Amino acid sequence: MHLKDIKGPEDIKGLSASELEELAEEIRHTIITCVSAGGGHLASSLGVVELAIALHCVFDSPRDRIVWDVGHQSYPHKLLTGRYERFHTLRKYGGLGGFPRVSESPHDAFGTGHSSTSISAALGMVEARDLRGEQHKVIAVIGDGAMTAGLAFEGLNHAGQLGKDLVVVLNDNEMSISPNVGALSRYLNRILTGDVYNRMKKDLKALIGGIPRVGAPVARFAERAEESLKGLFLPGMLFEELGFTYVGPIDGHDVDLLIRTLEKVKDTAAPTLVHTITKKGKGYGFSEQDPCSFHGVGPFELETGSPLSSGAASYSDVFGEALTELAEERPAVVAISAAMKEGTGLTAFARRFPERFYDVGIAEPHAATFAAGLARAGARPVVAIYSTFLQRSYDEIVHDVCLQNLPVVFAIDRSGIVGEDGPTHHGAFDISYLRHIPNLTVMSPRDGTELKEMLALALAHPGPTAIRYPRGKAEELPDGTPVVPGESEVLREGAELAILAVGNMVTPAVEAAARLEEEGVHPTVVNVRFLKPLDEGTISRVASVCGRVLTVEENALLGGFGSSVLELLSRSGLTGVSVDMLGIPDEFVEQGTQAELRRRYGLDAEGIYARALAFLRKSAAPVRSRVS
Amino acid sequence: MHLKDIKGPEDIKGLSASELEELAEEIRHTIITCVSAGGGHLASSLGVVELAIALHCVFDSPRDRIVWDVGHQSYPHKLLTGRYERFHTLRKYGGLGGFPRVSESPHDAFGTGHSSTSISAALGMVEARDLRGEQHKVIAVIGDGAMTAGLAFEGLNHAGQLGKDLVVVLNDNEMSISPNVGALSRYLNRILTGDVYNRMKKDLKALIGGIPRVGAPVARFAERAEESLKGLFLPGMLFEELGFTYVGPIDGHDVDLLIRTLEKVKDTAAPTLVHTITKKGKGYGFSEQDPCSFHGVGPFELETGSPLSSGAASYSDVFGEALTELAEERPAVVAISAAMKEGTGLTAFARRFPERFYDVGIAEPHAATFAAGLARAGARPVVAIYSTFLQRSYDEIVHDVCLQNLPVVFAIDRSGIVGEDGPTHHGAFDISYLRHIPNLTVMSPRDGTELKEMLALALAHPGPTAIRYPRGKAEELPDGTPVVPGESEVLREGAELAILAVGNMVTPAVEAAARLEEEGVHPTVVNVRFLKPLDEGTISRVASVCGRVLTVEENALLGGFGSSVLELLSRSGLTGVSVDMLGIPDEFVEQGTQAELRRRYGLDAEGIYARALAFLRKSAAPVRSRVS
Repeated sequence: MHLKDIKGPEDIKGLSASELEELAEEIRHTIITCVSAGGGHLASSLGVVELAIALHCVFDSPRDRIVWDVGHQSYPHKLLTGRYERFHTLRKYGGLGGFPRVSESPHDAFGTGHSSTSISAALGMVEARDLRGEQHKVIAVIGDGAMTAGLAFEGLNHAGQLGKDLVVVLNDNEMSISPNVGALSRYLNRILTGDVYNRMKKDLKALIGGIPRVGAPVARFAERAEESLKGLFLPGMLFEELGFTYVGPIDGHDVDLLIRTLEKVKDTAAPTLVHTITKKGKGYGFSEQDPCSFHGVGPFELETGSPLSSGAASYSDVFGEALTELAEERPAVVAISAAMKEGTGLTAFARRFPERFYDVGIAEPHAATFAAGLARAGARPVVAIYSTFLQRSYDEIVHDVCLQNLPVVFAIDRSGIVGEDGPTHHGAFDISYLRHIPNLTVMSPRDGTELKEMLALALAHPGPTAIRYPRGKAEELPDGTPVVPGESEVLREGAELAILAVGNMVTPAVEAAARLEEEGVHPTVVNVRFLKPLDEGTISRVASVCGRVLTVEENALLGGFGSSVLELLSRSGLTGVSVDMLGIPDEFVEQGTQAELRRRYGLDAEGIYARALAFLRKSAAPVRSRVS
Repeated sequence: MHLKDIKGPEDIKGLSASELEELAEEIRHTIITCVSAGGGHLASSLGVVELAIALHCVFDSPRDRIVWDVGHQSYPHKLLTGRYERFHTLRKYGGLGGFPRVSESPHDAFGTGHSSTSISAALGMVEARDLRGEQHKVIAVIGDGAMTAGLAFEGLNHAGQLGKDLVVVLNDNEMSISPNVGALSRYLNRILTGDVYNRMKKDLKALIGGIPRVGAPVARFAERAEESLKGLFLPGMLFEELGFTYVGPIDGHDVDLLIRTLEKVKDTAAPTLVHTITKKGKGYGFSEQDPCSFHGVGPFELETGSPLSSGAASYSDVFGEALTELAEERPAVVAISAAMKEGTGLTAFARRFPERFYDVGIAEPHAATFAAGLARAGARPVVAIYSTFLQRSYDEIVHDVCLQNLPVVFAIDRSGIVGEDGPTHHGAFDISYLRHIPNLTVMSPRDGTELKEMLALALAHPGPTAIRYPRGKAEELPDGTPVVPGESEVLREGAELAILAVGNMVTPAVEAAARLEEEGVHPTVVNVRFLKPLDEGTISRVASVCGRVLTVEENALLGGFGSSVLELLSRSGLTGVSVDMLGIPDEFVEQGTQAELRRRYGLDAEGIYARALAFLRKSAAPVRSRVS
């Protein structure tokens, strides 16, 4: 039986242990080959091949519901559920998603992408099942890293109380994306090393040492007590206290053991946690050795594991270097990451200032409130989190940071369109969810140089700040002027149209303007820099002069930068100005390369040029209003 | 020593145990008297009188930092830190806040209001302290209800890892606002009742029963083992596993014991959790008997405990009744509350449909994802959460509900200005943080009748919906027309000005319009109803006819409803229309009565009338544009 012949889970249910092991090999080979060519989440998926096989052997998907937490480890599941033929389209525009999606397959029980949602979602399915009187199992598969998030704890806590039939498989590879942090992780590690057990054994020995010596019976008792203790208190007491039956730890690469264990679990009707131990990156030497680097990767050379893309500095790199440099002179500066040290460019900072670096694990809400506490007591925290994950901290940004006007810097990486990771990962909303928060200053650099300057400004600012910058290479443009607080930069002055561009949209706007010049149109181009507060003077002036404004941003149009320009013009009484807005329309952005997606939304030089021309044609000669 | 003579914590440090007990009585009396007159959070504050006294006796505030989680229990702390004289201004406009505020006193180490932030914030202060080489203690005081939130777990998990000098006082009153839920709460309860211990004792007896009978020595051993077990494994093992030293449980009303315990804890340099047991509402018969009703109260009669305000139905009541009624015919409907069953009006629903009601505790992120799971599996969940607390679920609404277009209904209570609870509790941002989320329908009713109709529509809609409604009485206006999906309601047609009003702003807009008529101005008044999608046809038409639009909403102006009207006019090419916007400016709203605060922002009939007149005077005769 070959992978290509597996049309669904029913095709693997009869296979022998050795056949399943062969299948596992083939799945690994397929994943490694595919990801080396097109990039993707390699190490996590390699770690759960046997687990995915065992789950599909034992349970009856899609009747039974398997929820893959985060979902970056769902490639084996996708291969086992009829998606082998399309697997080469993984993460491509119009292709298979890199995460489970309910629209893609009935076997994708719940769409994931952000971490730690699986227990809550699965518990919802459990309750709906029981309400409807249905009979099936619901299984959440969650990593030890994801388990550190508060959301997972909330789910466990509620599930333990409800006491219904729910299976949680804890896929423990002792790291999530970076090596794990937190006391819970240490606890899990103590289970594995037997430390919890050893401490108790020691305590028991001391206890027994104190009783009268009566010879052999006590010695035998001690032995038996040891055995019993092992069963009574170990190793999953913490989960037991939260209402779960704990099973494990078991080897997550032993298909046969997994199947036997899950078969037993299948018959229980109470919350059960199965603790499996897996090796992230298993089956490919390079990813086994360095699972962090092979967590999410671009295309790489199969033989060497080396990335195929060039090493030009990304915005993350520029941020990390600039922060490390600024921190040399500023002892109060500390950096916070939520399980994304490498991704956010903080590796060098963490090495240089280990005592000033905090990886809080997958705990974005805590990251923001922890930063508020730091700032309140005199430190200068910089919180580096991807735009899409910072959504988790919205309330804490409002309530703990901005309400108290505390000087926390949010370094928002992966703002705008991120590419192949798709709708769960685009930073499409940050301007919209941040700009209405009082006291917050929001900036967006057009290149690496501006990012550095904005970071320095942010660290000098007495209140909260946010700097949003995109995924990708950071140029160092030659024609910039220094960043001045609250001021935009006018790159070109014209009279017929003012293009107001945000961050990475400035360069294509400048290109579009050059092409418009060729058509005899003379546009103004403004590098907005400050999304909040707006540079009201400059924007009102160029709007008034040109009569037509085209805003360009890589953010949702609703409530975004363009919207703030409309508010400004309304406040200023500049009624006669025509405004057109380029940005992300009211839909979730699909997956594809950044270039493909930008082209789709007209967020490149060609798109801006075309939109500007259409705008000029459409709008009547504008009525010039005075600046009030 | 009387309370009026206590100018700060230094004044109580020398007092005897009996003097402190007298002081406690006086504090209780002061709080009960003040809250009965002006309303406030009674029961929580009554529960921690001795704890506040003990903390201020043992620790040295403000050098030592005490962070009161949520902060609704901070009244005794306020009275002990020099705020007795101003205590009668509690929760009044310009008066003392109902929660700790850094701007109010150096003794308020961190501003709170939302639950479960204290451990994270305190941990930040601990790290800043150690970074700066300072020497002082940091104490987080957190309730057992607040402990169920994921944020608190994230804080514990990080604190346990860092292992620094931090004191967490767990104030366990076996309820937060409603009686607590969740496995953690059950675990704490087992500590108190000795169930954990009893189980272990039983296990040990079984074990001992199995060893050879050797007479007295074994019996003595068994006794000793019991004692030892008590010390070894009990009762705070769960916290110990997370890296905390557990102390307790101790009687939280025994000042002397509290002081002795905290004195010991003061000398430890590692994370320590002190488990105190208190009685919520202690010292006032009515609140002891019914701490839920006396959690947050309006003015009440001291002798009877009866509320002084009238019993007219609130929006919460109307919501709860309507949902219960709708649920009779719709077996798939379930309701979810986050520790706010009473506050959100769900008491009757929970009584009528106990198996379809979920109180998930203080766990708003889980509430949203749990609802997504329920909806995915065929249920029709309604999530009732206050606007300000729903901020915690922003990412889960985007990622788990709306991205998958799941039919979850968010019933957003306390939208807009809530009054005396102040800046942490106003629902000032919900339109801004919701309207940019694709797939979401957002509604706002102008009265109780519309709320009922919108709820019915929401339950029939195949995608996610949100209904935002204010704190306060829900009228049943006589002149309404049935709510039609996607359509606004034109209440009055004029020609010079279109007033577009949202939800509770419709009634004052109608009143303002009547006054404008008297001045010879004939305004159009539109009851917006649908914030998303907008009724583009009607809004474009009235804007085009009138040339002037005044938007009125109880939400931040930035990114709010007015902003969406500007976007619409821009999209429609209606350049010549003048727009003025009434709403909450770019600041956090202070505390005060709803009427006071609305007056301040012009969000009442008088304010709308005045703004409309000024707008008419200011704006030149508008240029009429065609509807494109």
